Amino acid sequence: MKKINNVKRHIPMYKQIANNIRVKIIKGVYKPDTKLHTEDEIAEEFGVSRMTARSATSELVEENLVYRVHGRGTFVKHNKIERSLNKITGFYEDMTSIGLTPTSKIISSIERLPTKHECMSLNIQKNAKVLEVKRIRYVDDEPYGYQKVILSIDAIDGSESLNLKEESLYAYLKKIQKPILTADQKMEAIINHDINKLIEIPTTIPLFYFKRVSFIEGNVPIELLYSYFRGDKFSYSIKLSD
Amino acid sequence: MKKINNVKRHIPMYKQIANNIRVKIIKGVYKPDTKLHTEDEIAEEFGVSRMTARSATSELVEENLVYRVHGRGTFVKHNKIERSLNKITGFYEDMTSIGLTPTSKIISSIERLPTKHECMSLNIQKNAKVLEVKRIRYVDDEPYGYQKVILSIDAIDGSESLNLKEESLYAYLKKIQKPILTADQKMEAIINHDINKLIEIPTTIPLFYFKRVSFIEGNVPIELLYSYFRGDKFSYSIKLSD
Repeated sequence: MKKINNVKRHIPMYKQIANNIRVKIIKGVYKPDTKLHTEDEIAEEFGVSRMTARSATSELVEENLVYRVHGRGTFVKHNKIERSLNKITGFYEDMTSIGLTPTSKIISSIERLPTKHECMSLNIQKNAKVLEVKRIRYVDDEPYGYQKVILSIDAIDGSESLNLKEESLYAYLKKIQKPILTADQKMEAIINHDINKLIEIPTTIPLFYFKRVSFIEGNVPIELLYSYFRGDKFSYSIKLSD
Repeated sequence: MKKINNVKRHIPMYKQIANNIRVKIIKGVYKPDTKLHTEDEIAEEFGVSRMTARSATSELVEENLVYRVHGRGTFVKHNKIERSLNKITGFYEDMTSIGLTPTSKIISSIERLPTKHECMSLNIQKNAKVLEVKRIRYVDDEPYGYQKVILSIDAIDGSESLNLKEESLYAYLKKIQKPILTADQKMEAIINHDINKLIEIPTTIPLFYFKRVSFIEGNVPIELLYSYFRGDKFSYSIKLSD
């Protein structure tokens, strides 16, 4: 029976097992179109019932990460991380919520005056201050993307306690009672050799480019975020309604 | 004074002018970072008030297609079409709504039995029939993308009156009282040389890949749609809320 590290008691067992398998799929330990362990094997491995093992693989089926073939078993579909666009989350939450370990390398972090574009986007005066942080985002030491965030310091007063190397910005904003409530986001599919070189991935990999302006209570813009994420690692799902 | 062709009486004048300018930006007649005509010039050109000319350029500012520089004028930002992910529309509606003229080349159109994956996605039996249509999508003779749609014929009974060469599928579904109400969509940023060759664009252009399952009343899946759109022509915006 395998012991899952860092067991969090409030996470149901089937979700912990799903996390464990998901990490292996995303890291490429289990390759696309290869067969997963059977539910009996998973049950045995984690010391749970067959029902629990089945719930774990059902979770991954729903996420579109694996597929079942009747009478043959469960197979890996692809190894892209599928994230929902229907809620606002940051990279840190996105990764931890599916059992991955995100880390960051801060390239630069400076307080400065805003550009004209930033004044408009963040609705601030030209003598206001912003905090600009450039970060490479990793999942278990593998580069997954690059982000430049411009924070409106006036809107959060007290950014000195913010440590973006160790802490999630979105969690920090919740902690100081200024949670992000809405955001406008633009998405592009691009090729940008400079970004690929910066984060040290092959230049053949296309990128998602996101530009996001996030708002706290009162429709106050707090963040202007430019993100570049690997097209070979991420897909985004959205529920549309008329 | 310039006369706008095919004037539709229900479209306000400022929107018609915005359409006229937008088309020129998207087609590259007006290049990024070049200056638009002044509002006085636009007013003169179209025989409208300066107010109306201003409303037209404001429309384009809101769409993020142009930007104003205080005291200097209005400049072209980029020439990507920005579409909203907050509503469900098809390519045809998307293009006509911004004054562009979409056309299609049908590569193949066949009625056949569904694959296993299609049975699952469309919730149909393996002896049900589907209509599969492959189309290259153009805007004024320039290729913008490729789509493969699998339609559940049973769910729409009467597809014989459907002419995808001339008609919008989504408009057709409205006409037969089966409008699409919701959809699940997945988005990827990819490079796929086969698609680029098929639609005759350079292989250096990255693509958006969308997989959409659309539902009519009663949560009945009607369409499984695979779309590939040019990354250099489109961006997608979304309003997120927690």
